[in-house]
Amino acid sequence: MLRGNMLVAQGGGPTAVINQSLVGVVLEAMNHPCIEKIYGSLHGVEGIVKNDLVLLSGLDPSHLEDVAKTPGSALLSTRVKPDAAYCKEMFERMKEHDIRYFFYIGGNDSSDTVRIVSEEAKREGYELRAVHIPKTIDNDLVGSDHTPGFGSAARYVASAFAGADFDNRSLNGVYIGVVMGRHAGFLTAAAALGRSEADAGPHLIYLPERVFDLEKFLADVKEIYDRLGRCVVAVSEGISDRSGTPIVTKLQQHVERDAHGNVQLSGTGALGDLLAAEIKAKLGIGRVRADTLGYMQRSFLGVVSNVDAAEARGAGEYGVRIAATAGVCSHAPDESDFSVAIERKDLPYRIVYRHVPLQTVAAKTKVMPDAFINEAGNHITQAFIDYAYPLIGTDFAKGTVLRAPKLEKGGEAQS
Amino acid sequence: MLRGNMLVAQGGGPTAVINQSLVGVVLEAMNHPCIEKIYGSLHGVEGIVKNDLVLLSGLDPSHLEDVAKTPGSALLSTRVKPDAAYCKEMFERMKEHDIRYFFYIGGNDSSDTVRIVSEEAKREGYELRAVHIPKTIDNDLVGSDHTPGFGSAARYVASAFAGADFDNRSLNGVYIGVVMGRHAGFLTAAAALGRSEADAGPHLIYLPERVFDLEKFLADVKEIYDRLGRCVVAVSEGISDRSGTPIVTKLQQHVERDAHGNVQLSGTGALGDLLAAEIKAKLGIGRVRADTLGYMQRSFLGVVSNVDAAEARGAGEYGVRIAATAGVCSHAPDESDFSVAIERKDLPYRIVYRHVPLQTVAAKTKVMPDAFINEAGNHITQAFIDYAYPLIGTDFAKGTVLRAPKLEKGGEAQS
Repeated sequence: MLRGNMLVAQGGGPTAVINQSLVGVVLEAMNHPCIEKIYGSLHGVEGIVKNDLVLLSGLDPSHLEDVAKTPGSALLSTRVKPDAAYCKEMFERMKEHDIRYFFYIGGNDSSDTVRIVSEEAKREGYELRAVHIPKTIDNDLVGSDHTPGFGSAARYVASAFAGADFDNRSLNGVYIGVVMGRHAGFLTAAAALGRSEADAGPHLIYLPERVFDLEKFLADVKEIYDRLGRCVVAVSEGISDRSGTPIVTKLQQHVERDAHGNVQLSGTGALGDLLAAEIKAKLGIGRVRADTLGYMQRSFLGVVSNVDAAEARGAGEYGVRIAATAGVCSHAPDESDFSVAIERKDLPYRIVYRHVPLQTVAAKTKVMPDAFINEAGNHITQAFIDYAYPLIGTDFAKGTVLRAPKLEKGGEAQS
Repeated sequence: MLRGNMLVAQGGGPTAVINQSLVGVVLEAMNHPCIEKIYGSLHGVEGIVKNDLVLLSGLDPSHLEDVAKTPGSALLSTRVKPDAAYCKEMFERMKEHDIRYFFYIGGNDSSDTVRIVSEEAKREGYELRAVHIPKTIDNDLVGSDHTPGFGSAARYVASAFAGADFDNRSLNGVYIGVVMGRHAGFLTAAAALGRSEADAGPHLIYLPERVFDLEKFLADVKEIYDRLGRCVVAVSEGISDRSGTPIVTKLQQHVERDAHGNVQLSGTGALGDLLAAEIKAKLGIGRVRADTLGYMQRSFLGVVSNVDAAEARGAGEYGVRIAATAGVCSHAPDESDFSVAIERKDLPYRIVYRHVPLQTVAAKTKVMPDAFINEAGNHITQAFIDYAYPLIGTDFAKGTVLRAPKLEKGGEAQS
């Protein structure tokens, strides 16, 4: 049993449940006598290098439970991607605090940080458990069935498109919603999870996994609009043309740079606006609206999948249990350093946690498998629904379209 | 007691609870023997003129309860603003169906439609109860303390900004959120309702009730950013300069029209993007993000204020009770035709319904009173919080910032 202190930090974009993982780590660590003090590093790896640490060991569990329900990164975050030299410096600081358990909650970049720190410790013969706890709304980590953070973001996107579809049904026209996800289309695909009717939107879904062709897009929209008198479209911000150039860059050739020469690329409404302008101009449809779902997808207060929250919590707890018992317990990892993964045990939906080598996850990206995307490349398949629906929560309630008999012109109702 | 059929319809932009009012009208009408058949008109006034009606009398209450929880207009909506000739034609169709109770759920334009239909009926000596049931996310109807639909939209906006503030706290920079509301700033002001800390955003709130000055805006952002290292801003889409020109139009002079000569004005991300570009260019801040909250504000599935839902239901029910008992009951209105209003009975929060003359509401707009806006014109007052907080629901839970003792450089914690 390895005795010493723990350091925990959070990196990259926050999620709605990243603090569940943090609180899972902290509360579980309190159960293990081998773990002495629990430190939190502020702003991810930056706090380690700058010695900007807080003490988490003695905190009131009820305060931690409130924090767990709060979006954003409670320990604050960073976009710094440490290189080998930076990781070495982190490692030096950790030695000074007798850190023997290093937990980093983040995406694939964060797992790569953990990998380098782990290797550095081995090289020096310093005994350290370096553990990566996964989070990302993109669901793009290799080695896991799915990733904590995705389910809640997917619930937000499903709820947004379900509502937008009822709105579009009321007033018709074309509605475009732009969803986060540069390379992986899982979150955009989640737009379909709230559909309650055969004619419900999104009627078209464009993913970064397929080449985006503007002419084909316009023909698709026209076909739906001519048939239903309306059309709801989900588009990934990452859609690109055959050469791999993002469409937002390409279409913006139509748009003058602003007074200061800046062209907006991300975190803006540009892609949706540009696609809407194309539809208005080329298809002559009057009512075309575009929303970019924005930071609400990862940070909206109060829209959380209960499944996702429990799994994020469990991933943190599992990581601590495995690290604390490494070498003394039969289920200990082959290596003391690992990334926590989620394996699905199929129907009825349940999961088990696994620990996988850091190399499996580090700096790699998973994209949507072909089986999740339809032949035409403009929608998803039932296989995706079956995969993703259990993740958005056991209490997700779809809306209901009014069913009432129509009156014949004479006056009597018919069904 | 007036015997005959009822016609109900919905007009204008949907809300998250407009179907609560519809279901309130229908279920309450079933209790009154004087009301025989209950018809719904599809797409608002259009369905009346086109004879596009459904029969609502015999529907299963449990189906109606499901519909009540669904955003969008269950009877579909319209943007048609009928003139006197159109209202006359509606009235002719209503006579053919022996409509004696005409209920229209909508905003100020819809109340004006009810007013004209009412006057037309009087002129012809046709006995009709013409009733306006209020709805709008803008909260801009005259004669009511607040309007059904506002509380749920305000809850969405409060949750969005609370989450965005935790996100911005994690990664710093400037965040701008653009909120619906062309003339009235109530919904933009609701961005402040989720604040849980003294240093929480939104740090700045710009309303259409005050002149927007770009230089003042930049100075405000700089002051906050210099002090906190971050800044969250809520902006109404309707902000205008001294001459009344919307800022989105003005700033877009910087932007080239697209290939087809179109300039985007609303339902787009333009205003947020343009303000973000100004901040980047003039203040030299790197991380500036802009979201436009879009149609989610009125249609997001599952974010509903329980107070708002109950009041929307109650407004529909009250309208039917008053109309059905007009002339036979002591609390009958002076006029048989009216708009339902909400009066607040102060602390603890409770309301009563009132019926007010259609002329009070019709085609008028209420804006934020001066007492709700701070001196500098860049935030709201405690009076607004006191007014609006009860409307977003009794179960609204704010997030929690982690409180943990900082470590001194030496290693010991201090509180």
